[in-house]
Amino acid sequence: MKEIMKTAVVGIGSRGSSLIPDAILPAGEEFGVEIAAVLDAYRDRTKLGADIVEERTGKRPKEAASYEEILNDPDIDAVIITAAWEPHIDLAVKAMKAGKYVAFEVGGAYSVEDCWRLVHTFEETGVPCMLLENCCYDRRELMTLRMVREGLFGEIVHAGGGYCHDLREEIAFGRENRHYRLRNYMNRNCENYPTHELGPIAKVFDINNGNRMMTLTSTASSAKGLHDYVLRKKGTDDPLADVDFLQGDVVTTVIKCAKGQTITLTLDTTLPRTYSRGFTVRGTRGAYFGETDSVFLDGTHNAFEFKGKALWGNAAEYEEAYQHPLWKEYDPRGGHGGIDFLVICAFFEALTAGTRPPIDVYDAAAWMSITALSEISIAQGGAPVEIPDFTRGKWYMRGDIDGSLRFNLDRADVFEGFYQKK
Amino acid sequence: MKEIMKTAVVGIGSRGSSLIPDAILPAGEEFGVEIAAVLDAYRDRTKLGADIVEERTGKRPKEAASYEEILNDPDIDAVIITAAWEPHIDLAVKAMKAGKYVAFEVGGAYSVEDCWRLVHTFEETGVPCMLLENCCYDRRELMTLRMVREGLFGEIVHAGGGYCHDLREEIAFGRENRHYRLRNYMNRNCENYPTHELGPIAKVFDINNGNRMMTLTSTASSAKGLHDYVLRKKGTDDPLADVDFLQGDVVTTVIKCAKGQTITLTLDTTLPRTYSRGFTVRGTRGAYFGETDSVFLDGTHNAFEFKGKALWGNAAEYEEAYQHPLWKEYDPRGGHGGIDFLVICAFFEALTAGTRPPIDVYDAAAWMSITALSEISIAQGGAPVEIPDFTRGKWYMRGDIDGSLRFNLDRADVFEGFYQKK
Repeated sequence: MKEIMKTAVVGIGSRGSSLIPDAILPAGEEFGVEIAAVLDAYRDRTKLGADIVEERTGKRPKEAASYEEILNDPDIDAVIITAAWEPHIDLAVKAMKAGKYVAFEVGGAYSVEDCWRLVHTFEETGVPCMLLENCCYDRRELMTLRMVREGLFGEIVHAGGGYCHDLREEIAFGRENRHYRLRNYMNRNCENYPTHELGPIAKVFDINNGNRMMTLTSTASSAKGLHDYVLRKKGTDDPLADVDFLQGDVVTTVIKCAKGQTITLTLDTTLPRTYSRGFTVRGTRGAYFGETDSVFLDGTHNAFEFKGKALWGNAAEYEEAYQHPLWKEYDPRGGHGGIDFLVICAFFEALTAGTRPPIDVYDAAAWMSITALSEISIAQGGAPVEIPDFTRGKWYMRGDIDGSLRFNLDRADVFEGFYQKK
Repeated sequence: MKEIMKTAVVGIGSRGSSLIPDAILPAGEEFGVEIAAVLDAYRDRTKLGADIVEERTGKRPKEAASYEEILNDPDIDAVIITAAWEPHIDLAVKAMKAGKYVAFEVGGAYSVEDCWRLVHTFEETGVPCMLLENCCYDRRELMTLRMVREGLFGEIVHAGGGYCHDLREEIAFGRENRHYRLRNYMNRNCENYPTHELGPIAKVFDINNGNRMMTLTSTASSAKGLHDYVLRKKGTDDPLADVDFLQGDVVTTVIKCAKGQTITLTLDTTLPRTYSRGFTVRGTRGAYFGETDSVFLDGTHNAFEFKGKALWGNAAEYEEAYQHPLWKEYDPRGGHGGIDFLVICAFFEALTAGTRPPIDVYDAAAWMSITALSEISIAQGGAPVEIPDFTRGKWYMRGDIDGSLRFNLDRADVFEGFYQKK
């Protein structure tokens, strides 16, 4: 094995240019991975990426002229894709075919067929591919997962979450920065960003590892927020003033799992509010409520507590006893409170150990498919839509699937057996 | 008109026996209404009802032997129904046919046909009928309604709410008190209690008065909470230990309105948690979030506030400026923080003025139908189900419908025009 592994970073927009210094370089120091090449569809951004790396490391990476140049470079071991949503799967598939470990940023799928391509390409090539779902690594999500695994919440029957983030400014005026969200909000009406909340829930529910998602229904409100925002900010002369945005302001998706659990997802990005992912997990003996950052344990807390106010924020009291080992072992740094660092660490760990990553093509396909499926359900007036079983039956045959389908975020040497099922 | 109006109270279980002293007698003093008769299916409860009234007023009401005795009594002007869920509509229909003003407690409908019977009977008899949805009168619901009417939230596009109330003890062991919930949880799987949250939302959305609900989808989680609770509390010898409860622990219902708004309802009564109705209203320029009792106004509050914690509980700051006139004018007393008193006042106001009540048969039919419709949607795997237009087109013809279909909770003489639409 090589002493130092080499990765390329593809897509140097606002995400790539912050992920490099905040997560990829620090995690690379931890695991011995260098950024050897950068690439963007715009030359100015390719140069920007190289500048950022050089400034931090003193070593200038190659400014690649094309994706093929990266894939054909035998020195490059891996590719990290931080481009716009649309090309994610194409780029990941090409990387697997070229034998490069690949990780790609979050976003929903544009068609179910693309999700199948991810799966088929992995199965044909055997090259690992990871979805960089950073929210799986957040403090509360991991603490909740630990509490669930330790049985504090009893049997889990329901979970909810949302991507609740006022993005009106970025969507409407990010165009000045060549942002890709605007074209999506003009042309699609769907749960366009499901994985931040669904990823952590799927791990709690053992999706693809003893459980699976069966069907969903999706319903969109009318689209009023962006239009009102554009008119107030720029007036009727703005090019967007007459645009008929298709993306509903609030999209509610309800998923039913094979083992009877339900999952509710909310997309909520074009109305005024504070940020929340509302990550909530409900069991027969306890719960975590993200909206109020509170833990409720049957027999410990009082159900008659008015509006639960006395419990708001009490999750912090559980950190000492139940914080996830990853948050104790590592020193999360950088973007988004450290979760970017942790998710890149997970990818580099798999890359350097030659193992499969903890969020693999089956996870990516199942989670990302929600976008394409919700679009169909909304167009059909909320009709239930089948969620494909991308494992084709292997989800209940643990022995047949590589152990990495369980949530082995923890380093096996340190925390072996931590996630063994009861 | 009579100096003193006379009402009967039918159903003296835990609800009736608390509503009499907490709300019916105090509101009766306000409006000049006496309790002249009481009735329950159990004789001991009929006597209890008479005892309660006599103790408070010194005057013993008639202990009726049958509902017919009440309906045939020409001295009785009105009937208040606080019985088990199942007979509500039958009793209300009979009262209208007998020419008695009637009000009945909340609960869902068992069939859509029953909802039509309410509407047809009202249209044939002209006798007013009110649903006693006390939550329409709660502080935050009314404050939010006022803020919406005054335009603070912009155009409203989405709302949500739930009946989130740990009822495991009452459901499983209320049988010792002849409670009706157990048989419902054993035999039905539906959004069995929608009106506490839907009522206030329907008033915000002008349902039946410029808008209507078109379709819903409903999805239930598995039913695990009650079984686990029974086993832990009573062990395997309890008669309920082997019961296969049909009612899912969490039921998520999504409603689409004619004007494009969406409404999400959550039934959540058999898992551990604190009480919440989660009443939430979202507009293009502001929002109220019940879960954290917070107001967000575009341009005033910071969308980047982490998890919105700085805003938790800030709704109290808006009370002085935006509290509803009813909460300033009246002195709400008694059960459920005063809302029982206010809803009975609304009924007595209509009764004594000879007008239609603010929550009428069209409201009752539309709101209660959600239960029967959700049962069908769940049974069909979440398929969208049509919500009937119980007004048959009159919902967009304000002039054709009695003005009381608007939310005239306020006393017209004091607050005339308060709810005029902008």
